[in-house]
Order: sequence, then structure tokens, then C-alpha cells
Amino acid sequence: MGPGPYERHRELLQQAVRAIATGGYCAPFTHAGHGAADAGMRSTRTAGKVFGSLLGRAFELDQPGELGRVSTESSPYGIAMDIGYPRCDPAALVAEAGRATAGWRAAGPYRRAWLAVEILRRLNTRSHELALAVHHTTGQSLQAAFRAAGPRAQDRALEAVAHAFAESARVPADLSWESTRHRRQPLAMRGTCTLVPRGVSLLIGCPDYPLWNGYPGLFASLVTGNPVIVAPHPRAVLPLAITVRVIRQVLAEAGHAPDIVSLAVAEPEQRLHRRLALDPAVRIVDFTGSARFADWLEQHAHQAAVFANRTGLNAVVVDSTEDYRGLVRGLAHSLCLCSGTVRTTPQNILVPAAGITTDEGRKSLRDFGADLSEAVDRLLGHPARVARLLGAIVGDEVRAGLAQATRYGPVVHASAALRHPDHPGADVRSPLLVRLGARDERVYAREWPGPVSFLVSTESTSHSLALLRGTVGRHGALFAAVHSTDPLVLAAAETAALDAGVHLVQNLADDLPADPSSASADLPAAGAHFVTGRFRVVRSRRHVPAAGTAVVEPERSPVPDGGSAASLVDV
Amino acid sequence: MGPGPYERHRELLQQAVRAIATGGYCAPFTHAGHGAADAGMRSTRTAGKVFGSLLGRAFELDQPGELGRVSTESSPYGIAMDIGYPRCDPAALVAEAGRATAGWRAAGPYRRAWLAVEILRRLNTRSHELALAVHHTTGQSLQAAFRAAGPRAQDRALEAVAHAFAESARVPADLSWESTRHRRQPLAMRGTCTLVPRGVSLLIGCPDYPLWNGYPGLFASLVTGNPVIVAPHPRAVLPLAITVRVIRQVLAEAGHAPDIVSLAVAEPEQRLHRRLALDPAVRIVDFTGSARFADWLEQHAHQAAVFANRTGLNAVVVDSTEDYRGLVRGLAHSLCLCSGTVRTTPQNILVPAAGITTDEGRKSLRDFGADLSEAVDRLLGHPARVARLLGAIVGDEVRAGLAQATRYGPVVHASAALRHPDHPGADVRSPLLVRLGARDERVYAREWPGPVSFLVSTESTSHSLALLRGTVGRHGALFAAVHSTDPLVLAAAETAALDAGVHLVQNLADDLPADPSSASADLPAAGAHFVTGRFRVVRSRRHVPAAGTAVVEPERSPVPDGGSAASLVDV
Repeated sequence: MGPGPYERHRELLQQAVRAIATGGYCAPFTHAGHGAADAGMRSTRTAGKVFGSLLGRAFELDQPGELGRVSTESSPYGIAMDIGYPRCDPAALVAEAGRATAGWRAAGPYRRAWLAVEILRRLNTRSHELALAVHHTTGQSLQAAFRAAGPRAQDRALEAVAHAFAESARVPADLSWESTRHRRQPLAMRGTCTLVPRGVSLLIGCPDYPLWNGYPGLFASLVTGNPVIVAPHPRAVLPLAITVRVIRQVLAEAGHAPDIVSLAVAEPEQRLHRRLALDPAVRIVDFTGSARFADWLEQHAHQAAVFANRTGLNAVVVDSTEDYRGLVRGLAHSLCLCSGTVRTTPQNILVPAAGITTDEGRKSLRDFGADLSEAVDRLLGHPARVARLLGAIVGDEVRAGLAQATRYGPVVHASAALRHPDHPGADVRSPLLVRLGARDERVYAREWPGPVSFLVSTESTSHSLALLRGTVGRHGALFAAVHSTDPLVLAAAETAALDAGVHLVQNLADDLPADPSSASADLPAAGAHFVTGRFRVVRSRRHVPAAGTAVVEPERSPVPDGGSAASLVDV
Repeated sequence: MGPGPYERHRELLQQAVRAIATGGYCAPFTHAGHGAADAGMRSTRTAGKVFGSLLGRAFELDQPGELGRVSTESSPYGIAMDIGYPRCDPAALVAEAGRATAGWRAAGPYRRAWLAVEILRRLNTRSHELALAVHHTTGQSLQAAFRAAGPRAQDRALEAVAHAFAESARVPADLSWESTRHRRQPLAMRGTCTLVPRGVSLLIGCPDYPLWNGYPGLFASLVTGNPVIVAPHPRAVLPLAITVRVIRQVLAEAGHAPDIVSLAVAEPEQRLHRRLALDPAVRIVDFTGSARFADWLEQHAHQAAVFANRTGLNAVVVDSTEDYRGLVRGLAHSLCLCSGTVRTTPQNILVPAAGITTDEGRKSLRDFGADLSEAVDRLLGHPARVARLLGAIVGDEVRAGLAQATRYGPVVHASAALRHPDHPGADVRSPLLVRLGARDERVYAREWPGPVSFLVSTESTSHSLALLRGTVGRHGALFAAVHSTDPLVLAAAETAALDAGVHLVQNLADDLPADPSSASADLPAAGAHFVTGRFRVVRSRRHVPAAGTAVVEPERSPVPDGGSAASLVDV
């Protein structure tokens, strides 16, 4: 099988590989028209029709072992979804994925990466449809859903593809050398290195960012040759179901077994995720979410490499600022955004009891809390902003958390039920901010879902940094932030963040500006390990036969003319 | 602290990095004089004196938490060892290693890699002493011990250093970009990427190849910034104790905490390995050896990344040959070498019941067994060869295995007690070869230590390959070999080896000739993952301050003039 029609994606892939190697930025889908991004993205209107046509029907995937249908979703915006996904025998999905492994391995990294780019290109044309699917399953506003499911998510996936491809292509394919060991005459030797995928990969979807969090592991596994079973969260199936259908179409068109990627859905009480995670044939598990389930995976799924991305305890250390208004406004924005579910939502805001120095003079802890609370109200003063910023609450555990958290300390900002301008039935809540003392660790050293945050009073900024180091070091976090005008405090914060192993943002109050490698910055294992842990390299060695002897070379992946792996990577 | 006197190792490191990138070969210690290898290796005589001076004494390491002394070794060649190692409180070793982490992290990859090369250079001058230590603890002949403990082991370690350094140096150190998100004016941004080591690393030593198997993990952890606690097997402490002492000296001379590397020894009944492996602060475990203990580690040491290299079931598939004598002689040699403890010792020789085609005509299974048995006797016909090839048996479990295995089938070659020409007290045994049927899987699908091998009769070569795929796929192996004149069989063997995830050797009868990357070929996870799993990358981002504002840059690792990480790696 030749490289096929998808070799045209080679240049795009090269750009992405180059960007990784140099710390540059490659976002062809976000910067549409730039690079090889597809200009054929469907309009919102067409997408709305397509989305509508999915509702109240069976979602066909033509998967093996189908036992029946299952519907698990309901839109927080009051639209009846009733989409009937195939409920397949998990053993059949695993078995088919296992059977597809050898063929997918033999396709080689070039072909796999090109196909992955083709998949992303097709997903790109469905960005609005995917955004609607995310909107109606996660409760995110349409704008937020488009950010998390559209071109930005595709660029993030492309970065995973490029990482996986670059690591695969770095494996030297052919070796030849002379051996003199134990012999009088040198013996001419040849060797072949083959990337051997680890095995069936399982993606456990999360309820809030099913694509943003799911794509990196899905595409890293695919490009390194591992079949993937996608098991979405029962509340957010559709975005991943559409993704799986697109992938299966591309695979089938290219002559590969579609069962290289399949969708596993069941009634929540069947605990399908746990069952699949413990299947002896499942060798990779990707998961983003609570530390509790991540711990369970690491303690039980011994047969698999577990890539668990713990959401953890995002923390903000406030010491001093030259832009008090900007700081307060930015923090208020972060507290509201997507009802506190984004990866930068601060859970714990650590502030010295004695207050902070600002360009508007000294601010006590009480002032700061009141100003923050006012800023939240100002931000949510307009219904359009409520709809755009907050979105709707989906999970009961979020409602329970909002009620419970008020018991632990004085409420700085109460969570109110707000009215959504377009969907009166949607459950929309403003963020809750509760004041705690440093000694209330049993409360703030726990992950709270949704818009629950704590204003933690500390003895000093050093004390704040010590709490950051301790709680984040133990429980993990996606980000930490520090606000200070003192270079020594910033340097101490850098060290504390390194000790806790967390990304740090300095003096940036609102949602993080995109950075050259923002996608990989929060890949679960943040770096090459996320890719290299998905395969091993197996070597075959032989004596070079005398001239005239026929040799059957093992099937090799097609390498484009004039382009060795090295030349593609060493740009 | 500047780069220090070890920057002179930069060129050697560059060579090694280049060799990895191009699939080339870099063995400066083996090819003495070549490259920057040290020519000052001590003579055998001097080494003998130094070795003698270690016996019957306390082995000083000046480690924290010392509770007493412990002696656990005895030489199979009858020399009284009585070396008293410090028995330290494991909690104290872990705590000191933890305290040393931040300083070692701050040293940065350049300095760590240069120091590692300096350590290897010093170990190189002690190659003969290390060989004596391996000889007297493992029972290997002096020649074999020199191969496994001297320049070849140092080159293998250098390859791990180069891998670790290259992966570290690929992390882009500084980023700068403009962010336009949420803003009218672009915001100038700067970012810093820092490699954050995973944490305290534990090396669990093995009894037969303590340095060969131990160095890759030890040096990969060190160069990626992780402190290492070295816990040797109680029977083979000295080689690693000498190594640890050299490392501590180099660290102390360079102004680093010596407790970045420490030695943990205790009475075997204290199960120190298990205790350390479960310590919450231990975040990396390296182990080479039985699948049973590897499984235990993976099931219990959840807090750590476990790099377990299972010795497993090496298999040889014999189909046909053009050099029957060479095949038989080579296999006999492999069965004898180091009493069956080398990484290429075949445990299971899979041969069709109907026999094989050869350049000397058809050979029945019975003929083949008899010829192999004779070849073993011929090889061991001379006492000097007995001493050189076999070495002495150390473990009681090997003696027990030799007795037990004879019960399962006809003995093709009986294991005899042989006389060592120089050490009449040494327990020297010739290899045992027992014939089994394919149905005896419960016997041959188990790891047998020492010189125990099975001649397994199969229905056909396809059946042999199916058994290889099944047993090796389930239980692992370091190598598989195939002998055939039929290109189709060789191609089928390649596929079977890929399915089982094992390195394959084709038509090479004796001990494997060195290959350009033989060292990494059997690194535990065979590839980049072995290195990248030891760290993560943490990012710090900030707004670029207006001109005139003082900025304290966080402490960075020294980068040599004119040489960025990228230029050093992209050669």
C-alpha cells in the first residue's frame, strides 16, 4: 500500500514538527487560511441543521458486538437529545481492536500521521457541529464550546500528532555495521528497528472538555500505532461519537480496519470505564479529571501505562500589584468563566491576612474580597454576559458542592441562580467565594467541581508559597499563578512551582494568553513521555547474505522519496 | 556556579548524542584512546591490590543515618570477603536524597551530564577492580566480568547519559511571543521551560549483572536530575558500592551534596528493596530480573514510575540452516556462557519433531539434540575453557532448578559438576538440556535461572513461531533467535517477534555481535521512554516588563557560550 492521497499533508506535518523543535507556534486551524488549514468549514446554520438531524435517532457506527442502544445525555439547555448510541460488547470491541493492531502497526508512522492530519482536516469542517455537541452536553456557552471543540482543539491535536510522529521518526529505521567480535574476519551486519505499539489504548472521556482533553491522548496513541477505544463520559458522548465516526470513515476509505477506533458507551451503572481499564488487552489508559479516579486507575490498571492528568488544586498567590483593578477584574473573569470548569479556574486564592500593597494603596483582605465580589457582580450584570461567560450547570455534584462549601466559612460572594436570556430552564449559577483560614486545609486541599473557590487567609506571602508547595505538590494542579511587584517573591514563586511540579503564570490576571506551546503545556505528562510511553522499539538483526541470495525484506512503512525520517525531523 | 572543569567532556557527549541521532556507534571506553576515553586505566596488578585492600574491612561511605554494619557477600571462589557496608536508616537516605533534589535540579542538564561523564571516566580507571568485584560476587569468569563491568558497561552508561542529555536539551529553554487574546494591543510575553525531575529514584540491583543492568537507570536518573538510592542485591553489593563511592566523590568535589547518590544495604531478611520501593517519596524504580518481582513492583509501587526489565523466556526457533556445524557450535557456546546467565542464553530451543534441513542433510530432533550435547562436551573438554566460559554457580536457587528440571523430560545433556582449574572449591556446572513436548508449557513457560534449557519438540516451524509469540508475548524475553534458510520463515519470524515485542536475531548462532546501538537495544523500555519517563517539563510565563524595570531571572543552568541546547543536539 503506497502513501496514498494524504501525502499532501506532509508539509503541514513538517511545519508542526519544526514548531515543536524550535519552541515555535503552529496553529494552522486557528489561523485559518494560514498553512494547509481547510477553508471549507461549514457555516453555523448548516451545522445547526446537521446537529438537529442527529437528535432523537440512532447514531450509526456499524461497530462489532452491538447488543442494543443506549441514551445517556440530556441538554442543560432543555433540548431533548435522545440519541441512541450503539451499546457494544466491550469484549468484542477489545478483540477487534486487538485484531486491527498488526495492520495498523505495519502502516508505519508516516501513513498514520498523514491519516491523522486528514482526520483533523475533516473534523475542522465540522467545528460548529462539534461546538453545538459540546454546548448541549457540557453546558458551556456556544462561544466557549467553539473554543474547546473547534480549531483550537484541532491544533492541540495536531501538536500531539506532530510529537508522536517526530518521536516515531527519530527511531533509526535501518542500521548496518561490521562486527568483529569472536571472529577473524569482520562480519557485515544489517539491522532493522521497528516501532512496536504498546497495544489497545483506552480514552476515558471527561464531562466538561471531552475533545480538548481527549484529543491529545487519542491522536498520540493513533499515530504511534495503537488502536483506541473511546469511552466518553455518559453525560458528554456526542462530541466524541462524532469524532469517532469521522475517524472510522477516514480509516475505511484509506483501506484500514475501521475498528482501529471505536466508541464504547453503556448505562452509567455498568461502570464500563472501570471494566475496560482492567481488561488485560488494554495497555494504555488516558484520563483527565479527578485525582480520585486517577489514583484508582494507577492502583488497579497495572497492565496499562496510565496517562492521568489530575485537574487538582489551581492556586493563585496574591502578594502585591501595580494594577489592582486589572487584577481584580481578571480574577473575577477567571472565577466566572465556564462556571469555573476551565483549566485555569483558581480554586484557592492565597492572600496574606495583613493584606496586599497595590497601586491604589494598601488593601486589606476584607477589601480585596469585597472588591472581587463586586467585580463578579459587575461582570454578570448583563444577561448576555451571563450566557456567554457562565454557561449552564450540568452535574448534580456541582450543585451539591455549591451548597456544602458555604458551611466552612464566611461567604465572600454567594452563588446565585441567574436567568439565561435564551434558555429560561437552564441552571445558571454565579461563582461562590468562601473565606477560609490557612488551617482549613481539609476543605481547600480537596478538589471542588464547578464555581467554588476559596479566599485563604495566610500569615504572609512566604506562608502562601509554602501552602502552594504543599497542597499542589501532594494533590497536583494544572496551573498556579502569582501576583507580585517584588522580583524576589517572583523568584521564590518560580522555585515553589518547580518543587510542586506545576506550571506558573506571573502577573497575568485573566485567562492565560495562548503561548507558543500552550497545547503541550498541559498535556498530561507535559512532554515527550506522553508520546514515548506508547511504544517500544524492537530490533531485528541479521548477517548480510552473500551476493546473489534472494532476500525477502519485511514489510516496511512507505517512506516518501528523498525524505528520510532524519531529514524530516532535523529541520 | 559555572560549568566547572568538566566542560572538557562536552565533545565526548556531543559524539555520543550524534551517534544516537544517526543510529551510529560511539564506544569511546571500549575503543580506548578513541575519543576522550581515559588512557589511565589501572593495571590488573594494581587493581588486585586495591581489591584485596577492601576485603575484611568496613567500606566507608560517610552516609547519613548509619545504624551499623552489614556483610552479605561470599565469593563462590572461596575468598573470604567480609566487607562491612554501612547499614543506614532507609528513611534517612530517602530524606537526604529528597533534600538534595532542588540543588541537583538547579544544576541543569549540561552540568549533570558533564559530571556523569567525569564519573564514568573515573570508573573506567577502576575497570579491573570492578571486574574483580563482579567476578567474586557473581561467579562470572574474570574475562566475562571485565566485559560486564568494564569499558563496555561504561559505554552503555554513556549511551544512557547521552539519551538523557539529548532529551533534556530538546526542551526549549526560553520562549517569547506576542499574545493578542482578549486584548487590543499585542502583549509581549516571555516563558521559561524547566525540566522537573520526578523525584527520588531507586535502583534495585540484580545478582548477576549488577553494573551492566544497573548503570542505564542509574545514569538516566542522575542526568535527568533525580537523586538515586542504590539498593544492590545482597549477594552482589561490592560493584555498586564502589560505583556509589566514586559518584559521591565526584559530586562532593564539584560542590554538590554527595547524598544525591547513596547505597542502601541491609540483611536480606529485612526486605529493604520492598520497603524502599513503597516509600511515598520514591518516584522512580529501576529493576532488571524476574517477571515475578517486576509484577510485584508494578502492582504495589503505584507512587513510582517502574522501569522493569523482565529477563523472561529467551527462545530460539530452529527451522533450517546452511551451516549446521556453526549453528550447533554457536548454540552450545550460548548454553555454556556464564553458566547460562547472559542476556542471550536461550532457555527454549523450539525444533520441529520432524527435524530440520541442513547443509549436512536432514537432521532428526534426536540427532540435533545429540550433536548439541556433544558440542557442549567438546567445548568444556578443557579446564581453561571451563573456567573462562562457565564461571561458578552462586545461588542455591540455581542448584535447586538444575535438580528439579530433570524430572520433566528426557535429559539430552546432563549438568555435571566440573573442576575449576584454579579454585577447586568453586561450584562449576555444565549446562542442563532437557527435551520437552510443546504441551509442557507449564515447564518451559517459566523462567529458569542458570544453565537450564529445554529442547522443545513442535509440530512445525509455524507451530514454533506460534509458541514464541504466545510465551514471549505473555512472559517477555530479552531476545529471540531464528535459524532458517527460507526467506518466508524469516519474514514470518519478524512478524512474530514484533507481535511478541521482542528483539530478533536471524541466523547468528553464537553470542550476539555488538550492534551500533546494542546498549540501548536492551535498555528496559528500549527507547526514549526510558529517559523521558523520569522528568516532566514545567513552564513559567510572564508579561515582558516595560524597559527600565529590574527583573530577577530565576537561576538557570549554565549553557556554554555560543552553544544552545538546539545546536548541540541538531548536529
